[in-house]
Amino acid sequence: MPEYKAPLRDIKFVTEEVLDFHGHYAKLPGAEEATPDMVAAILEEGAKFAERVLSPLNRVGDQQGCQFKDGVVTTPEGFKEAYQQYVEGGWPSLSHPEEVGGQGLPDSLGMMVTEMIATSNWSWGMYPGLSHGAMNTIELHGTDEQKQTYLTKLVSGEWTGTMCLTEPHCGTDLGMLKTKAEPQDDGSYAITGTKIFISAGEHDMADNIVHIVLARLPDAPAGTKGISLFIVPKHNVDDAGEVADRNQVSCGSIEHKMGIHGNATCVMNFDGAKGFLIGEPNRGLNCMFTFMNAARLGTALQGLAHAEWALQNSVAYAKDRLQMRALSGPKAPEKAADPIIVHPDVRRMLLTQKAFAEGGRALIHYCSMLVDTMKRGTADEKAEADELMSLLTPIAKAFLTETGFEAANHGLQVFGGHGFIAEWGMEQNVRDCRISMLYEGTTGIQALDLLGRKVLMTQGATLRRFTKIIHKFCKEHKGDKRVKSYITALDKLNGEWGDVTMKIGMKAMRNKDEVGAASVDYLMFSGYVVLAYFWARMAVTAQNKLDEGTDEVGFYTAKLQTATFYYDRLLPRTRAHAEAMLSGADNLLAMEEDNFLFLNA
Amino acid sequence: MPEYKAPLRDIKFVTEEVLDFHGHYAKLPGAEEATPDMVAAILEEGAKFAERVLSPLNRVGDQQGCQFKDGVVTTPEGFKEAYQQYVEGGWPSLSHPEEVGGQGLPDSLGMMVTEMIATSNWSWGMYPGLSHGAMNTIELHGTDEQKQTYLTKLVSGEWTGTMCLTEPHCGTDLGMLKTKAEPQDDGSYAITGTKIFISAGEHDMADNIVHIVLARLPDAPAGTKGISLFIVPKHNVDDAGEVADRNQVSCGSIEHKMGIHGNATCVMNFDGAKGFLIGEPNRGLNCMFTFMNAARLGTALQGLAHAEWALQNSVAYAKDRLQMRALSGPKAPEKAADPIIVHPDVRRMLLTQKAFAEGGRALIHYCSMLVDTMKRGTADEKAEADELMSLLTPIAKAFLTETGFEAANHGLQVFGGHGFIAEWGMEQNVRDCRISMLYEGTTGIQALDLLGRKVLMTQGATLRRFTKIIHKFCKEHKGDKRVKSYITALDKLNGEWGDVTMKIGMKAMRNKDEVGAASVDYLMFSGYVVLAYFWARMAVTAQNKLDEGTDEVGFYTAKLQTATFYYDRLLPRTRAHAEAMLSGADNLLAMEEDNFLFLNA
Repeated sequence: MPEYKAPLRDIKFVTEEVLDFHGHYAKLPGAEEATPDMVAAILEEGAKFAERVLSPLNRVGDQQGCQFKDGVVTTPEGFKEAYQQYVEGGWPSLSHPEEVGGQGLPDSLGMMVTEMIATSNWSWGMYPGLSHGAMNTIELHGTDEQKQTYLTKLVSGEWTGTMCLTEPHCGTDLGMLKTKAEPQDDGSYAITGTKIFISAGEHDMADNIVHIVLARLPDAPAGTKGISLFIVPKHNVDDAGEVADRNQVSCGSIEHKMGIHGNATCVMNFDGAKGFLIGEPNRGLNCMFTFMNAARLGTALQGLAHAEWALQNSVAYAKDRLQMRALSGPKAPEKAADPIIVHPDVRRMLLTQKAFAEGGRALIHYCSMLVDTMKRGTADEKAEADELMSLLTPIAKAFLTETGFEAANHGLQVFGGHGFIAEWGMEQNVRDCRISMLYEGTTGIQALDLLGRKVLMTQGATLRRFTKIIHKFCKEHKGDKRVKSYITALDKLNGEWGDVTMKIGMKAMRNKDEVGAASVDYLMFSGYVVLAYFWARMAVTAQNKLDEGTDEVGFYTAKLQTATFYYDRLLPRTRAHAEAMLSGADNLLAMEEDNFLFLNA
Repeated sequence: MPEYKAPLRDIKFVTEEVLDFHGHYAKLPGAEEATPDMVAAILEEGAKFAERVLSPLNRVGDQQGCQFKDGVVTTPEGFKEAYQQYVEGGWPSLSHPEEVGGQGLPDSLGMMVTEMIATSNWSWGMYPGLSHGAMNTIELHGTDEQKQTYLTKLVSGEWTGTMCLTEPHCGTDLGMLKTKAEPQDDGSYAITGTKIFISAGEHDMADNIVHIVLARLPDAPAGTKGISLFIVPKHNVDDAGEVADRNQVSCGSIEHKMGIHGNATCVMNFDGAKGFLIGEPNRGLNCMFTFMNAARLGTALQGLAHAEWALQNSVAYAKDRLQMRALSGPKAPEKAADPIIVHPDVRRMLLTQKAFAEGGRALIHYCSMLVDTMKRGTADEKAEADELMSLLTPIAKAFLTETGFEAANHGLQVFGGHGFIAEWGMEQNVRDCRISMLYEGTTGIQALDLLGRKVLMTQGATLRRFTKIIHKFCKEHKGDKRVKSYITALDKLNGEWGDVTMKIGMKAMRNKDEVGAASVDYLMFSGYVVLAYFWARMAVTAQNKLDEGTDEVGFYTAKLQTATFYYDRLLPRTRAHAEAMLSGADNLLAMEEDNFLFLNA
């Protein structure tokens, strides 16, 4: 049966040995309590919760799904109790400010715990995950009263939150949204409209749900510049701050979907529900954007989660399942056949998962260091972190979910026909993963954000901020023969990243559609370069450890071997992406709409 | 809601205009009745059956699935009635010999009908599909009496068939199978053992089920050379040829699986069931291999089926769904937003589906012409067709299912978040497709078959048989400026195909594991070259039609545009596969088994 073990050794390698989190915490204002001992203790407790409580509920969630009856959603058996344990453990408050009852620990420490929760049971993890989105919004844009009323309850975990953006006719194109907000005499607003795809919109795990809702004021300009943001609680809150009567918001139905069955995806009906404006009128989208990067990083994590889960279970199966002999002669002659891990192609699938999972882990935790700095650094540090994060977010979100889906499929494939059967859990992993390329902005939208908004609109300045970091790293290690093959390839590719950007920029000046035509291949190219940078860094760290002398020779050697695999077998994909993205928009735009299909001839 | 329209125009383009099926039938012995009128009439009737009867049952099959109770399997509502109509329409007998009640029409004509059945409802189509496997076995290896008793009933469709190969501990590695066959005094055999993953192993659609079972005689040598083949009917058959008492074979359970819910995947228990030897003792696997290519071509078709289904539904959605404006300015200013088909990246996803579906169609029907020739040609023609088929089968099976899965995922992606929701049908298409890369030999197994058995074991002779065809085609069209870009690229790639084969062959002489290390990338490389050949042929045909003058300018222009898209944007993937496959086995073999994961540190 599938199971999850927290990869504490690898989290430690990435965060401590490669990214030097302890050095980072030592300098980060207000992170004094995040001592090595404290971090280790938190990770150990988080690992226990993920392994013992959440992991066993992962399959239950898929099988039972959420049930909907008369507006009430019942979550799968055990979900509610697990949430109770989560609240009692103090987990919701970990990285929120002390003023609202939080523990004030760095976001990046929260992300390490979130990685374990996410991987052990993604569907369950979405309930607290959505709360974090709501908390960030109120934290940044709410009034003191709103913080006191709502934020403290979210931070304690007594209540959960949602983000209500999508409507039936608009997902990507929020400028089209129709939900209305009419001002009332008491200063509140009456919210009316229908929202769809609202994760955790209704459930039985907490006493109240705080919906963050995008809606239009009566005099609002059309399009994205006329959208405001509101708090709409499921239950109104009385003067004592406790749950009072029901607000006019209700769940109309839940979706039947491919995966993440344990999470309720709701249609939410607002029928003149009482809401409270957050931030300034008509600036709702701007308020959203301030924490969009953090939310997208949370979805990027889903790619890593499913890759790690696939890896753990398919490695175990590949060592256990006996089938055929190695072409080069029996490796386990005493057995009826060799374990399939001897076959090179099975190893190719395992190493692909490993390269994406462990490379993705480095990228995710690097980004979450940037989040720390964005919140707590000096003005200069904040500006730099913000710029890097704005570049890396669409890459992390789209590249890690695309490669996470590939990894999940390799995991299934290692199981042969058994991979298709529910009880092995590999097909659930693929189904659960599939949503990650869609929500929080599809891969296509991330790619436009990257190439259009982040790279070309800044005349490449944002990109250069990161390519310079790579360049500096390559320069530092240029003379190091031990890692020469990585550094040479990375340096070349880093230069090419700039070159192809320039070429596409030139084309785009003649025809803006060149941006959309190149965007996804550009994003995937960028993702492979970014992961190559982290694999080179990991290789340097591992090589140093080996040279210093270590009793973990196998662990560090495997890092070097995985880096080599990544450079030899995955990085060549940049050739295909480069050629495709430079082929121009004509091969996409030439066809008349009506000529895509001829079915009635 | 998702629906299927038979792509008759495109089937006609591929089979008549590109592959000249009418010329082929005119020369094919015994194919006199397959006149253009007859072919057209059959396709039209087949299209009606697929569109009106099977397509509406596709979602029903997924939602209801098969039910199992006390050894009895109930298929989804309407499946049984559809099968009755199929039998009454005479469809099972279409391409089987007249001596056993068939219509004697060419296999390739049957394949055109099968394409429509397969695409409209894959799960349903598997029931008659498995029967064809059983029929082919008995047709080639059964005694006259076996043909009279079983084949006639299968050909009429009164009974259905299965193929019982896999056991819990062996799928790929059939040499390990344990099912026993003990000779009885009456010349029959008592079959005992457990088979798993038996598609259509039990159901309520026909009066009897004819199982073709692999088992071992008591004195059989170990491994694959000790496997014999048996007929084991669900119900014994009396002297009058009618269904009699129940045989000792029963369905123990059905699998809960990712997709193809409408098809029953059974655990079959044989408890001393009465069986009859087919062919010679211990030669069972050889008997299987004689029609393995045909069976695998049937699975290759699944890739095309899901790509076509995805294409039809995502093109319709992309023309209908309004979201955002084109970056180059509004294309439908009268609407609230532009239809998403204006966005280059949406077109990239649609054209990828189109290139794989229509290119796959050409490959499939080319292969089914080879099947015709293998059955009805002269000795020389048979030998050539057999050699080509042996090369193309693993390519078609693995490449078309891998790219079919990619296409199915693009289809889902075009729908954004809605793609993840069951009612749109796109996620079912992805789930149903996923099995195609696993059964009938995984992608990895096809790749070993291609590179090891077909290419290297023949010292490249089998490969050269096909590269010569491409070479000849390129030579013929070298001076043709209209299609120069395709021909130049194809010719170069065809040469490279030979070169990389040589290089891998050299490496393999030193280390046999180099074969497995290169195999899947080699197969995918080969697939892209093969499809490039068919896209070039289609481009030549389309260009000729346009130059001759036609009132279908849009149709033929779209062929040229899709060919250009394929060459510009998909063919560059050969760069990544070539580089990866030549990178050697060391980057896969170096890692110690125990170093793939460190979870308890």
